[in-house]
Amino acid sequence: MTKVHNFSAGPGILPQQAIDNSISALQNFMGTNLSLIEVSHRDKEFESVMAEARQLPLDILGLGDDYDAVYLGGGASLQFCMVPYNFLNTKAAYLKTGVWAANAVKEAKFFGETDVVASSEDKNYTYVPKDFVIPTDAEYFHYTSNNTIYGTQMHSIPNSPVPLFCDMSSDIFSKQIDAKKFDLIYAGAQKNMGPAGATLVILKKELLEKITRKIPSMLDYRNHFSKESMYNTPPVFAVYCSLQVLKWVKEMGL
Amino acid sequence: MTKVHNFSAGPGILPQQAIDNSISALQNFMGTNLSLIEVSHRDKEFESVMAEARQLPLDILGLGDDYDAVYLGGGASLQFCMVPYNFLNTKAAYLKTGVWAANAVKEAKFFGETDVVASSEDKNYTYVPKDFVIPTDAEYFHYTSNNTIYGTQMHSIPNSPVPLFCDMSSDIFSKQIDAKKFDLIYAGAQKNMGPAGATLVILKKELLEKITRKIPSMLDYRNHFSKESMYNTPPVFAVYCSLQVLKWVKEMGL
Repeated sequence: MTKVHNFSAGPGILPQQAIDNSISALQNFMGTNLSLIEVSHRDKEFESVMAEARQLPLDILGLGDDYDAVYLGGGASLQFCMVPYNFLNTKAAYLKTGVWAANAVKEAKFFGETDVVASSEDKNYTYVPKDFVIPTDAEYFHYTSNNTIYGTQMHSIPNSPVPLFCDMSSDIFSKQIDAKKFDLIYAGAQKNMGPAGATLVILKKELLEKITRKIPSMLDYRNHFSKESMYNTPPVFAVYCSLQVLKWVKEMGL
Repeated sequence: MTKVHNFSAGPGILPQQAIDNSISALQNFMGTNLSLIEVSHRDKEFESVMAEARQLPLDILGLGDDYDAVYLGGGASLQFCMVPYNFLNTKAAYLKTGVWAANAVKEAKFFGETDVVASSEDKNYTYVPKDFVIPTDAEYFHYTSNNTIYGTQMHSIPNSPVPLFCDMSSDIFSKQIDAKKFDLIYAGAQKNMGPAGATLVILKKELLEKITRKIPSMLDYRNHFSKESMYNTPPVFAVYCSLQVLKWVKEMGL
């Protein structure tokens, strides 16, 4: 039985098979006679889960070896801070199309010049600005692909002269996209791919070489990517459950 | 059937009733006909879970209204950064008794002068230093109550002339303590109180008034405490499961 997918505000409805598989793993994880939440993330069984959960999003999005993926705690809101902490040294460009985009702008200002190239705040974020120019001297351009609160979705990927970053929390894996246009994608799991508690971050590996700021360890993407999402204990259950949803997405196709 | 509690390295063995209750909630959360991981954290059912999960640790530790508790994502490792980001303006004192304590020291140095009052690094953290002086001009004194990797546990609470902070990840709720001696306590859930993916932070409310640094929103304790652990989407499953463990701890007694 497949339930309806929910792409509006609030958490997503998950495929029943993903919930059922997660329950089975809580009862007995891969024949270990332990619950999923009792095994070490360093056990080979969970390491295989993490490896698959990192690879599958790349496969589904048609991304190759030049990209990598990790799961972090703290929600997409923590990425509003980590993205500029790692990549905004002088100036970044942001499109302000909703409450989440505005929160991302607010955090970016903490780290450097934040050029809001266009905003729909004047009409309460009820439309998506069409005419905007992305400055060529920005270190990246950031936008939110879908604004859940007001239902305004970007229907095409902007052409960007600088690295393209996107918060896809509410529409990742909901349709086919040309993911190779992006340098960094992040998405809180709880909308489209699993339970609250994990955020998927995908980036083009070469981007990591651009990090020059001194950053607290847990906020430095280089640590999480070099340790293959095991820099510290990952949110084990949320990763496992997200993997079950991703398997279902792959079966169903985008 | 009660399983043995595990206070050594690696994740904890959880009481079976906590796992069973968590599975039931994944099947049908409090009569909503939705899975726990499909309901909004803003639904009244989950709000009641969060309220109880925040109050019960205070009750178990004998702490009153002058303390408050929240659940954050990112693990105790993120607290190594958040603690000094919020509270180290000029100088803090740290006891370096193990790998986790050393990691906490490393992050603190990022934010201000970090006075390591004693260290057992010379003998690979196999003992706990006994003679040390905590400077009275430090903003806080931080130590790790139990070092899982080498099994060195602090058997008494140090007398501190400055606010006392403690990483209790591996022994919180394992024995009776005089919790009122502490100004801030944190603990990653995955050792003693639930699954990986949530970290309990308890603090004396008056401490929040001492925060003066400008801090990115998600790293600012004031946001998480003023929003009662709902500043952003909390790790719903990990909080629910932790609550089940806490109920069991309360039943069993410390």
